[in-house]
Amino acid sequence: MNQSELKQVAAERAALFVEDGMTIGLGTGSTVFFLVEAIARRIKEEGLHIQGVATSSRTANQAAELGIKMLDLNDVDHIDLTIDGADEIDKHFQGIKGGGAAHTLEKMVAINSTRNIWIVDESKLVPVLGKFPLPTEVIPFGCEQVFKRLEAENLHPHFRLDADGERIRTHNQNFVIDLHMGAIKHPHLLKQFLDSEVGILEHGLFLDLVNTVVVGTQDGAQVLDAKR
Amino acid sequence: MNQSELKQVAAERAALFVEDGMTIGLGTGSTVFFLVEAIARRIKEEGLHIQGVATSSRTANQAAELGIKMLDLNDVDHIDLTIDGADEIDKHFQGIKGGGAAHTLEKMVAINSTRNIWIVDESKLVPVLGKFPLPTEVIPFGCEQVFKRLEAENLHPHFRLDADGERIRTHNQNFVIDLHMGAIKHPHLLKQFLDSEVGILEHGLFLDLVNTVVVGTQDGAQVLDAKR
Repeated sequence: MNQSELKQVAAERAALFVEDGMTIGLGTGSTVFFLVEAIARRIKEEGLHIQGVATSSRTANQAAELGIKMLDLNDVDHIDLTIDGADEIDKHFQGIKGGGAAHTLEKMVAINSTRNIWIVDESKLVPVLGKFPLPTEVIPFGCEQVFKRLEAENLHPHFRLDADGERIRTHNQNFVIDLHMGAIKHPHLLKQFLDSEVGILEHGLFLDLVNTVVVGTQDGAQVLDAKR
Repeated sequence: MNQSELKQVAAERAALFVEDGMTIGLGTGSTVFFLVEAIARRIKEEGLHIQGVATSSRTANQAAELGIKMLDLNDVDHIDLTIDGADEIDKHFQGIKGGGAAHTLEKMVAINSTRNIWIVDESKLVPVLGKFPLPTEVIPFGCEQVFKRLEAENLHPHFRLDADGERIRTHNQNFVIDLHMGAIKHPHLLKQFLDSEVGILEHGLFLDLVNTVVVGTQDGAQVLDAKR
C-alpha cells in the first residue's frame, strides 16, 4: 500500500470509534479527509445521530456536503471524541501538529474533547520529535522581534511561505514561523518557553493530549493506547 | 491637583528620561497623551533626534502629527526606552495593564525594550493586584469554551462590552475577557496558567518588566526605582 492507502486504513479503523449520539471533533488534513468519508458512510448505513465540530473550513465544508450536522465550537456543550491527524508522534505519545497551519484551532478542539484519537500512516511514528519543523503561529505586530528572539534561542526559525514566496496567513490572519530544530530533547520545557513568549498565539507541540493512536501499516490498522 | 493633572505631572517628569538618539516605545492611554506632548516639546525646543514605536494607532497618529518620527516595531533594531501607563502597580513593581485593550501590543513593545518606565497617578499604586479586572485577549474560535474554563477556575470572567453592549474587538480582532478576581495572590502562578491556556493570546499581567515608576502626587512627581 502507498502512503495514501495507509492513511485510509487508519482513518477507516478510527471511524469505528464513533458512537451514536456523540459530538465529534474533526481535524484537518489528508488523513482526516478519508475519516470524514468513513464517518459519513457509517451515518448513512447505520443511521447514527452524530454532530461534528471542525477545525478548518475545508473539513467543515466536506463534512456538511456529506450530510454531517456541523456546529461551531462555541455552540457545543462539550466534545466526546476528536479524531485528527498528526505530523509526528514519539514513543511517549507526544506529538507535533500544524503542517496544515491549523494547529491553534486543532489544539482548541483537542483540549475540549473527552478523548483524542490521532490517525497516521506509520511514517509519522518517530523516536524523537523535531525532524518535522515545529510550527508556531505568530501575530504580525512585532513578528520580526519574535523571529530574532527565536533565532537567539537557537530554535532555527523560518517564516512559512506559500508557492509565491509570500508569508502564509492562518485562519486568524497570523503568520507561521516553523522551528527547524532537528530534535526536540525536552518538549515540556520547550512548550513552557513557547507558551510564555509574547506574540506567539500557539505552537504545534501537543503534549499529554492524545489517548489513542491508530496507525496505518502494511499489515492493516494498528491501535496504540497512550494509557492516559 | 485633579487626576488628570497628576497624570500630566508624571508624564512630564518621565519625558526627561528621553535622550538624544534614542528609539522610544510609546504606550497608550490618557497619561501617555501628555507624555507624547511633552516629548514633542523637548524635540522642538532642544533639537533632539529620536524615533518612536507606538502600541496603538491613536498614539502613532498623535505622535506623527506632533512631528515625532514613527516606525513600526518590525522595522527597528531595538527600543532603548518605553514609557507607558499602567492600571495597577503593586509594592513589588508588578503590574496590570490592558484597560485600553492594547496589552498584547504594549507587552510586545515592553519586552523588546532595554528599559521600561511606567507613568501613573498615585491612585494606581495598590498593595495587591486584582481590584482592577485583569484583561485577557482571546481569539473568537472557541472563546465560549475558554470562558467556561476560566469560570471553572474561579477567575470570574466577563467579556468586555462596548457602549452598545457588543463585545469589543482588539487590534488583532480578538475579544477581551476581563477577570474580576478582586485580589491576585500569586501573580506568577496565574501568569503561568494563563500563558498555557489555549486561545488566550496574551493577558495583562506585566511581571518583572518595569524598571522605574514615575508617580504623579500632590507634591509633584515621585520617581520609584524597581531595582531590576
